[in-house]
Amino acid sequence: MQNVVNHRWLLASYPEGMPSSENWTADIQPVPDPGPGQILVKAKWLSVDPYMRGRMSPGTNYTKGVGIGEVMQGGGVGEVVASNHPAWKIGDVAESMSFGWQEWSILTPDIFGPAGVNKIDPKLAPIESSLSWLGMPGVTAYFGLLDVGRPRPGETVVVSAASGAVGQLVGQIAKLAGCRAVAIAGDDEKLQWCREIGFDAAINYKKAADLTAAVKDCCSQGVDVFFDNTAGPIHDAVMKNLSIGARVVICGRVALADRFGKPDIGERFMGQLIVTRASIHGFLAFDWWHRREEALKRLADWQQAGKIRFKEDVLNGIEKMPEAFLRLLHGKNFGKQIVRIS
Amino acid sequence: MQNVVNHRWLLASYPEGMPSSENWTADIQPVPDPGPGQILVKAKWLSVDPYMRGRMSPGTNYTKGVGIGEVMQGGGVGEVVASNHPAWKIGDVAESMSFGWQEWSILTPDIFGPAGVNKIDPKLAPIESSLSWLGMPGVTAYFGLLDVGRPRPGETVVVSAASGAVGQLVGQIAKLAGCRAVAIAGDDEKLQWCREIGFDAAINYKKAADLTAAVKDCCSQGVDVFFDNTAGPIHDAVMKNLSIGARVVICGRVALADRFGKPDIGERFMGQLIVTRASIHGFLAFDWWHRREEALKRLADWQQAGKIRFKEDVLNGIEKMPEAFLRLLHGKNFGKQIVRIS
Repeated sequence: MQNVVNHRWLLASYPEGMPSSENWTADIQPVPDPGPGQILVKAKWLSVDPYMRGRMSPGTNYTKGVGIGEVMQGGGVGEVVASNHPAWKIGDVAESMSFGWQEWSILTPDIFGPAGVNKIDPKLAPIESSLSWLGMPGVTAYFGLLDVGRPRPGETVVVSAASGAVGQLVGQIAKLAGCRAVAIAGDDEKLQWCREIGFDAAINYKKAADLTAAVKDCCSQGVDVFFDNTAGPIHDAVMKNLSIGARVVICGRVALADRFGKPDIGERFMGQLIVTRASIHGFLAFDWWHRREEALKRLADWQQAGKIRFKEDVLNGIEKMPEAFLRLLHGKNFGKQIVRIS
Repeated sequence: MQNVVNHRWLLASYPEGMPSSENWTADIQPVPDPGPGQILVKAKWLSVDPYMRGRMSPGTNYTKGVGIGEVMQGGGVGEVVASNHPAWKIGDVAESMSFGWQEWSILTPDIFGPAGVNKIDPKLAPIESSLSWLGMPGVTAYFGLLDVGRPRPGETVVVSAASGAVGQLVGQIAKLAGCRAVAIAGDDEKLQWCREIGFDAAINYKKAADLTAAVKDCCSQGVDVFFDNTAGPIHDAVMKNLSIGARVVICGRVALADRFGKPDIGERFMGQLIVTRASIHGFLAFDWWHRREEALKRLADWQQAGKIRFKEDVLNGIEKMPEAFLRLLHGKNFGKQIVRIS
């Protein structure tokens, strides 16, 4: 496109510990043209998510890392402005995890799976919802809790990072499943929100003198499902309170962002696992991607019926991408962190 | 009984770290008389098993600990010498985990579950088999591998403490299930036995310069099922080699016998769990006790068809009970440790 540029963020270096803004370089390129079967999409919203810490690594995590000098990976949603694909026309709204931290993106709709492109119905919900409760975080919460955690009515579900993109949904789905939901977060305002959306109890891990005891106080019958987004000391405190037959869903490890790739030193709970016959399940929502529509349909129904609510935390402008991501790693966001681009 | 005494071992103290012979006191009592519905059994064989470390503790593990001054808990098999129960007659062979470290035991047949009494057919196998491959360790290996580990043909199964009571069965059942079986133990003679009974590869963890690398060398496609009897550094090395979708069965933690009840400090593998979508399952054979007969029937069939073999390590005399148990905790036994009583 003439006289229009594409502002992008390139990965400049791999962080040793906690990422900082120096790990990315701003870059300007001409807006590219779509190839055969491709579409050009102008970003309206971009997403930052904890998984991106794993992409800032030279090795292969569950998928390969971003190369130095490449556009930083990330999801986004925007408007189709040029199309070489018969199923897509100008003005359609496209959401994809292949967007990248940039204003304009070339996408390939005919990819099946997490790297693919989804057509968004703007009448169903604000389009940025496709980056949060009606998108990847929603799918993660839905299958992670229901298929991996397998909650039964009356059970106690504990959620770490409970006001985050995934956590706030897990708590509400747990309530819909007939469970008691307990929130853990590090800020009273966040915990107040958790109570408003239905969590039965809330623990501020930064204020608890003894976090293990605080969890025990809230969960006198033990923790039946632990949906863990943080790892680290919060994980340890909850693990000491598992009930017989508990299921632990390992969804994230944002508390370890400053030691990515290094051994996660702590307590291992072999004894608790045997005594409680508990199980710990590592989990990636992408394994359920073929059932994505099922989750989104259910989430949309619940939302329209007023049964789930969702909080987003918005920054404005492509220049804010590193800041938005770092807010997330430091727990400074309140709700799902997204960035409005245009 | 006149002029006959019952030699017993009482728990004298709770060990802080590794148990020692001072934790028990020898005791002599008259042989007791069975009450209504009870039987008196003279021990032929007594068992020592790693779970007994958990009973030498004031707290409740998965079942409550032995009280100071009480007879040390343990399984045994022997001959009925007096019966107040209609289904039991003198000369019957009774096996029970409620036997205790003593020569004579009063048992109550009408208890359902692990504390109950099983009638043993001496024609099926030597009666001491009911303490090993045709008893609790057999049930543990059978359900732990097949129901918890869920091995599929072609998968790689790694077993720690591979020549032990449970480990040697797990390896052979893994082979019968069409898997590749890899043994880990700390003695070349034990590993030679593992190869003889069908393990495809064997790792001496005491000799490996880099145990993680040694496991990787043996499991180039990754470890699909890890049946862990030890915990500790062996656990860590195998965890670093899990395949996508791996199942880790936590059966025992004998490597932690010297730090029972203390935090198990080490690596936690949150990253590996997410990347591999692996699961870790704490496991107690007693949860499958209602299906015990299924396991024993299958094990007996396999043994009669020459498909499984089993090694026992025998000491003689009730006076050897502490020594037998301590051999086990120090890995000095070669095969299932049992004690011949009479």
